[in-house]
Amino acid sequence: MTKPLKIALLGCGVVGSQVVRLLREQEGDLAARVGAPLELAGVAVRKIGRKRDTEIDPELLTTDAESLVTRDDVDIVVEVIGGIEPARSLILSAMASGKSVVTANKALLAEDGATIHRAARENNADLYFEASVAGAIPLLRPLRESMAGDRVQRVLGIVNGTTNYILDKMDSTGASFTDALEEAQALGYAEADPTADVEGFDAAAKAAILAGIAFHTRVTAADVYREGITEITAADVASAEAMGYVIKLLAICARSDDGGSVGVRVHPAMIPRSHPLAGVREAYNAVFVEAESAGRLMFYGAGAGGAPTASAVLGDIVAVARNRIANTRGPEESTYADLRVHPMGDSITRCHVSLDVADKPGVLARVAEIFAKHDVSIQTVRQEGRGDDAQLVIVSHRATDAALQATIGSLREMDIVRAVAGVMRVEGDEAP
Amino acid sequence: MTKPLKIALLGCGVVGSQVVRLLREQEGDLAARVGAPLELAGVAVRKIGRKRDTEIDPELLTTDAESLVTRDDVDIVVEVIGGIEPARSLILSAMASGKSVVTANKALLAEDGATIHRAARENNADLYFEASVAGAIPLLRPLRESMAGDRVQRVLGIVNGTTNYILDKMDSTGASFTDALEEAQALGYAEADPTADVEGFDAAAKAAILAGIAFHTRVTAADVYREGITEITAADVASAEAMGYVIKLLAICARSDDGGSVGVRVHPAMIPRSHPLAGVREAYNAVFVEAESAGRLMFYGAGAGGAPTASAVLGDIVAVARNRIANTRGPEESTYADLRVHPMGDSITRCHVSLDVADKPGVLARVAEIFAKHDVSIQTVRQEGRGDDAQLVIVSHRATDAALQATIGSLREMDIVRAVAGVMRVEGDEAP
Repeated sequence: MTKPLKIALLGCGVVGSQVVRLLREQEGDLAARVGAPLELAGVAVRKIGRKRDTEIDPELLTTDAESLVTRDDVDIVVEVIGGIEPARSLILSAMASGKSVVTANKALLAEDGATIHRAARENNADLYFEASVAGAIPLLRPLRESMAGDRVQRVLGIVNGTTNYILDKMDSTGASFTDALEEAQALGYAEADPTADVEGFDAAAKAAILAGIAFHTRVTAADVYREGITEITAADVASAEAMGYVIKLLAICARSDDGGSVGVRVHPAMIPRSHPLAGVREAYNAVFVEAESAGRLMFYGAGAGGAPTASAVLGDIVAVARNRIANTRGPEESTYADLRVHPMGDSITRCHVSLDVADKPGVLARVAEIFAKHDVSIQTVRQEGRGDDAQLVIVSHRATDAALQATIGSLREMDIVRAVAGVMRVEGDEAP
Repeated sequence: MTKPLKIALLGCGVVGSQVVRLLREQEGDLAARVGAPLELAGVAVRKIGRKRDTEIDPELLTTDAESLVTRDDVDIVVEVIGGIEPARSLILSAMASGKSVVTANKALLAEDGATIHRAARENNADLYFEASVAGAIPLLRPLRESMAGDRVQRVLGIVNGTTNYILDKMDSTGASFTDALEEAQALGYAEADPTADVEGFDAAAKAAILAGIAFHTRVTAADVYREGITEITAADVASAEAMGYVIKLLAICARSDDGGSVGVRVHPAMIPRSHPLAGVREAYNAVFVEAESAGRLMFYGAGAGGAPTASAVLGDIVAVARNRIANTRGPEESTYADLRVHPMGDSITRCHVSLDVADKPGVLARVAEIFAKHDVSIQTVRQEGRGDDAQLVIVSHRATDAALQATIGSLREMDIVRAVAGVMRVEGDEAP
């Protein structure tokens, strides 16, 4: 057994307090798995006096994070503060001082991963961040290591538990967005300011991280097309349900058909109820990975929460601890493919659209002509009602998002179209 | 870029030929990911002249596997022959000669993993075997590394594609076992001699490997309780369906309630249709992992086939290649917990049983008394038919398998019970 490895923990909130608890409760198992005891060297917090979810020796608490991460006796720095600063500066100081770093910070990695990864490389420091995407679900390590001999084509997933909880409530109870959000807030699934979740920022950060690893290309949050779920109505949900679909907020990272570029996007989409992602309820996460040889893989589990996220953090702590003892480090950032990230307009998707139309002979023909003009083929058309209430519900085949948006623009300008209602992308059921 | 790493491939059947193809087609990507080119040094086959699924330079083929694995220029030995010998001797020779080993050989690891793992340790050699369980699904690496900071409670999965295909056909078409097996054979999902699959030997080997990793304990195939699916009738399937269940062949590795021992078993079981494993169709595999902090995780994908299995093999090749360049090795076998593997009788499960009974007052009371005598509580009873056709369908609560079997033995001896039909374990819906 080697001498103890010392851990500095930055942040002691929902996740951090679980990390402290697990380090204590699993002390013997962790030591056996690592080959050395893991010891908590200190915990940096904003306020010393605050009540925590777990017991912590008061002598370990400090408000001086900068001194903690550079302390000579510290081997591993675990960052669970979140946000850009001071997290970035602390991680950079830690690496410069020769520490291994474990972080759950999706926002930082998606916004400025380049700086963090470069520092890891220059300082020959380990950087693990499994907990930054999809909480407890082992996803980054499988993508980065298990799939290292395969060619990933697409990653398609539900990576934000809050929005999945809201959409699931809307689907199962018919609630409005506002009511479902309030329920999620009451239950602690959504924060008081839910912007990061409901506007898709959180999912977009995760999509950037996933795309970067899957395609060996640097992708930042700014490269990700993003739409949130705030404008989804109970009527949209009901209409999807009537057609055998369910609405989910999806993160989609896909190689272009020619393989030369990638698209990364987060937006609500209708998926068929028979699709495995349709069955992902409440705040759970699930991610599909499609690879050339492996085919379709799915990973499912708790995407957030203190203990599940701490499980992923602990797995990374064990990995960096083993690496330190073996005097080696894990795989570093891989960006050799350096693919172009194409704009949303070049992404291939499908579209569902409901049109309120005048019930006159020839309406369908004229609408179909608009689709044809934009090179978009129609998969299904359903005509509902008659007279003033006539409605055309159209689902397209695959086309570029630019062509689909142009089609919708043209439809809005038609005199026979009274209103374009319920425009929604469709994913998950048509082979490329 | 480092000098090329040379690979010796043992076996060039369904999986081996895909490994050759992928090494060739992904040459550039693999070199970039590893940091050195990967080169095929030789392919050991039984007969040189045989037609292969992919093109191979004839000069690479050899029937002298022993010489190939000890050749000075070889760095990595990939074993996809299967079976115990000559695979074991070749792997041991390779390790003794300082090679890193990647294998897909579940039978060997489950029967004599101790010898193989000891040789890896003594020779300081890498041993990776992701492809041995659940084909393309990244499962062993997540269990061994991502969950290294958690406490796994249970692994529950469908790990044999052939039997899942057969049971799925029986469920969806009402076919008999024999007819479904013939269809599976015609489509190449089952072998001419299907014993290893339908009798559960293949799943038992995988269960032993999974349990060993999950519980840090050495588990061999001989420790695994095993029942196949050959006695499942169309009537069993129909009866399960009527109750909202589906029959699956499950591999179950579970910690005892007190945590002091583990049970490892493979047998058919009824699971509720609402359970995510119930939706696993055709030859797909899926595995649930329940851990103390992470909660329930599910991994889903293709469990067999040339390209999917080759994807897992290639992932391992990249890992051992990176390790060789970094002059390190992956985590070795972890058996520190050394838990007792308890016999099937001590495993906790539930039971469904149909009884043909005389339709007399007091029958249910007397049957219930038998359950109570064995300390087994009843969850549901349904009485069907009347007179000579009266049937009691009973589902128990959780109990030890020994108590459940003793209960069924006592039921068989009752004068009012004409026949005990449809005895089947029930899994997947009652919290411990």
